[in-house]
Amino acid sequence: MADYITRRQYNDWISEARAAALLCGYPVDDSMVNDNTGLIFGDYEGLDNGLWPGNDESHERFVIFQSVNYPAIEGMPKKAFAGAQYGGLCDKCMVLFPGQFCSVHYHVRKSEYYIVLGGEMVVLYSQDRAPGGEYEDGTNADLIETAKLPAGTPLTAGTPLPKGREKSYEVVQDNTNILKPGDPRFLLPRKTPHAFFCPHDAKVPTVIHEISCYSHEPTTSGKDTLLKDWQHIHDNVFLHPGIKEARLANNIKD
Amino acid sequence: MADYITRRQYNDWISEARAAALLCGYPVDDSMVNDNTGLIFGDYEGLDNGLWPGNDESHERFVIFQSVNYPAIEGMPKKAFAGAQYGGLCDKCMVLFPGQFCSVHYHVRKSEYYIVLGGEMVVLYSQDRAPGGEYEDGTNADLIETAKLPAGTPLTAGTPLPKGREKSYEVVQDNTNILKPGDPRFLLPRKTPHAFFCPHDAKVPTVIHEISCYSHEPTTSGKDTLLKDWQHIHDNVFLHPGIKEARLANNIKD
Amino acid sequence: MADYITRRQYNDWISEARAAALLCGYPVDDSMVNDNTGLIFGDYEGLDNGLWPGNDESHERFVIFQSVNYPAIEGMPKKAFAGAQYGGLCDKCMVLFPGQFCSVHYHVRKSEYYIVLGGEMVVLYSQDRAPGGEYEDGTNADLIETAKLPAGTPLTAGTPLPKGREKSYEVVQDNTNILKPGDPRFLLPRKTPHAFFCPHDAKVPTVIHEISCYSHEPTTSGKDTLLKDWQHIHDNVFLHPGIKEARLANNIKD
Amino acid sequence: MADYITRRQYNDWISEARAAALLCGYPVDDSMVNDNTGLIFGDYEGLDNGLWPGNDESHERFVIFQSVNYPAIEGMPKKAFAGAQYGGLCDKCMVLFPGQFCSVHYHVRKSEYYIVLGGEMVVLYSQDRAPGGEYEDGTNADLIETAKLPAGTPLTAGTPLPKGREKSYEVVQDNTNILKPGDPRFLLPRKTPHAFFCPHDAKVPTVIHEISCYSHEPTTSGKDTLLKDWQHIHDNVFLHPGIKEARLANNIKD
Repeated sequence: MADYITRRQYNDWISEARAAALLCGYPVDDSMVNDNTGLIFGDYEGLDNGLWPGNDESHERFVIFQSVNYPAIEGMPKKAFAGAQYGGLCDKCMVLFPGQFCSVHYHVRKSEYYIVLGGEMVVLYSQDRAPGGEYEDGTNADLIETAKLPAGTPLTAGTPLPKGREKSYEVVQDNTNILKPGDPRFLLPRKTPHAFFCPHDAKVPTVIHEISCYSHEPTTSGKDTLLKDWQHIHDNVFLHPGIKEARLANNIKD
Repeated sequence: MADYITRRQYNDWISEARAAALLCGYPVDDSMVNDNTGLIFGDYEGLDNGLWPGNDESHERFVIFQSVNYPAIEGMPKKAFAGAQYGGLCDKCMVLFPGQFCSVHYHVRKSEYYIVLGGEMVVLYSQDRAPGGEYEDGTNADLIETAKLPAGTPLTAGTPLPKGREKSYEVVQDNTNILKPGDPRFLLPRKTPHAFFCPHDAKVPTVIHEISCYSHEPTTSGKDTLLKDWQHIHDNVFLHPGIKEARLANNIKD
Repeated sequence: MADYITRRQYNDWISEARAAALLCGYPVDDSMVNDNTGLIFGDYEGLDNGLWPGNDESHERFVIFQSVNYPAIEGMPKKAFAGAQYGGLCDKCMVLFPGQFCSVHYHVRKSEYYIVLGGEMVVLYSQDRAPGGEYEDGTNADLIETAKLPAGTPLTAGTPLPKGREKSYEVVQDNTNILKPGDPRFLLPRKTPHAFFCPHDAKVPTVIHEISCYSHEPTTSGKDTLLKDWQHIHDNVFLHPGIKEARLANNIKD
Repeated sequence: MADYITRRQYNDWISEARAAALLCGYPVDDSMVNDNTGLIFGDYEGLDNGLWPGNDESHERFVIFQSVNYPAIEGMPKKAFAGAQYGGLCDKCMVLFPGQFCSVHYHVRKSEYYIVLGGEMVVLYSQDRAPGGEYEDGTNADLIETAKLPAGTPLTAGTPLPKGREKSYEVVQDNTNILKPGDPRFLLPRKTPHAFFCPHDAKVPTVIHEISCYSHEPTTSGKDTLLKDWQHIHDNVFLHPGIKEARLANNIKD
């Protein structure tokens, strides 16, 4: 069982994903490609089967091309800065090949919505917001009240979940929403546990335009592009243990 | 000289704009169409010449289909609410026919960026942020420092500006940027005077996907959709006198 | 009741149609625009209601931008020339606004298929080929046998047909097929009576990429672009009387 | 040096190409996928480097998804049948990854034109038609006169040509034309030697919509779909020796 990805595998994967993004009109340039563009979440199995394995295995991995991550603090009164980490603008393109999943997680600060540019996106989510207690600064009290998200349909029975990580999907498997190009925007407020995947029998990758508040993601390759004051923030809470660290760097073997 | 638009003219205009938006993949539904979907800025002249006048007149008017205006306050600590009006997420599609302009203005709170879906967008902007003093609550002091925007190219000599409003363009006419589909995102921070238009000889309307922080626009038709706490806010500062009020309602004659 | 279209109405119509074609990626240039780009089939009624009448009237009129009409005789043995009028390549974009129809007709020589670029196209057709006897040269005998087209679904009851021309739709109203972007190609062999229209409640025009054998259409504005040997050919047989002539020129009043 | 492609390599290649075609809106279904969908022209070298080799090698191989190949003989007078093999309609999507070439060849019967759906297509062609003598039935006399194609620009110096096949490019390397989405149709009459390729530094595959007269291609996998009377016809004349046979079947090793 490998615990790494080869440079060749990594490059082919990113090249395919970039081609899909570009064919959908998303402007990927070289500055958006680095060793954290592909996210593997510590799941290095099955990589030898390529991007079109033609089976029903599921793996947590996908690609992010980020074109905007703007703190939006310019021209703001200094006294508003404390709350600014809940604002800002982020624009990215995410690409998933068949059977690839984004892990179940939620953000403490970031709200987001999706525009599908190609293929189909299956979103799994919780109607209830994550319970308090996860805030790094301990402030889980005094949150602004939130409405429940509308109910979705249960995940299709028999959908293979990423092996060994099935438990983390329990909180989101009752509500799925399948998004396609031209659909209305689907909004996920902060503190909403969610995951998404590309259907196993898809003939095209899922190409997603995600728009959100500022993305606090201190990955190894991208950390120095973050606002200095916020570089310590880990805004992503993953429900399966150990993913948080695995998310921050890939083991690419040259 | 008319000071109104007929219902028939208004409906034809919105129908054409909606068709253009939909053909570009933007999901316009009926909830996005009302009597403020078309913005006229008080300039009712030339409406009898239709959307393809084939001349070099310029007029300030365009169409906005807004699909998301999300305050993003859910799940936020209550103590951050004061600064939340500088955050949030707004997603809209704007359509301009040849010779149509968006008036010179800036936002006190909203930062924004553009994705051109069809045609060409000429953006005019100031490298310098608007001077202080415009804040409704008087807080023009203690703003977070901002960098200058990169220089653009001067507006093409001879471009006819909207009649009687030429003066308001002085501050933006030195820097233009022509945006096309597939271009990198172009970001305009809050407090940046800007305008934009569709070239007079264009064969397609300019179709723009604008993404921004929350849009504080208390128009007559849309006011009740705004967050209650923020309904009094006028975030748009126009450089030509009298437009602010003209922006809020159209005189449509049935 | 007008028996003409004004220059202004004509130009606005063609401009809107061109914008739709261009937004769908069809390369329309000025050489494709003339006084026969819009086809009216002698039906000048309802033109004052514009392109978005919002009612259930039906009219026979649409727009054709033709980018290729290639006889494909170059490099062919001279002895094959006699049969060449059944070959060749034609590439065009057709645009119909809501409630606009293409008249019921068939071609003696031309086979064709459709690719929908925008909106929806309702095709009406006969499963049986047109009976013989219409050939201009009298050769209705000794045709190569043809298979029946697959059955479609009947035209939705209550669909308003173009006034005074209802009878011509009898032969095609039992078989309709609704085509959308991404659908398989739908092929109509020569001698198949057919018509098509844009749904009355459509929010976008129907934008069609039609590919076919050489198009023998001796319109007033386009006749001199046809191959000299073939300029006398009228390949279109219309089922409603008198349309053939009305098709060849529009009465545009400057 | 391998003289085969593995099943896994073949499937991954076709899957990637199909995804690119579908993302560009071309309707590929399973009926268009078989063991001749990928064309290798006998050049099995370099297959282990995948589709994004990142170097300057050139290879003759690409993918064809064919959605229409219609003889267009239905409803035609029997006496015209002899010339019908110069007519008909064919609609296909071709996909080339960086550094992949279509071999230099011409068709005896088929004329064609290109619409680029994604990426860039470099077409190389001869202004002069191929000399007579290649007709299978010997009829190289009495051809209908043809005009010269307009001159293009010479192939960029240093472009690596497929190894061992450089000589076949001599006749086409003086005239190239780079085609992009939205460009006018580029027409290649029968008997015109031509080739095309995807630039070595491309970030997306070249996705081409080719429209042509009937395609006479008696490949192993597709032969039984051809019109019986025409199954013996080899319409493609390749300038490099031995490709004709290599074109007809791939050596895929399960």
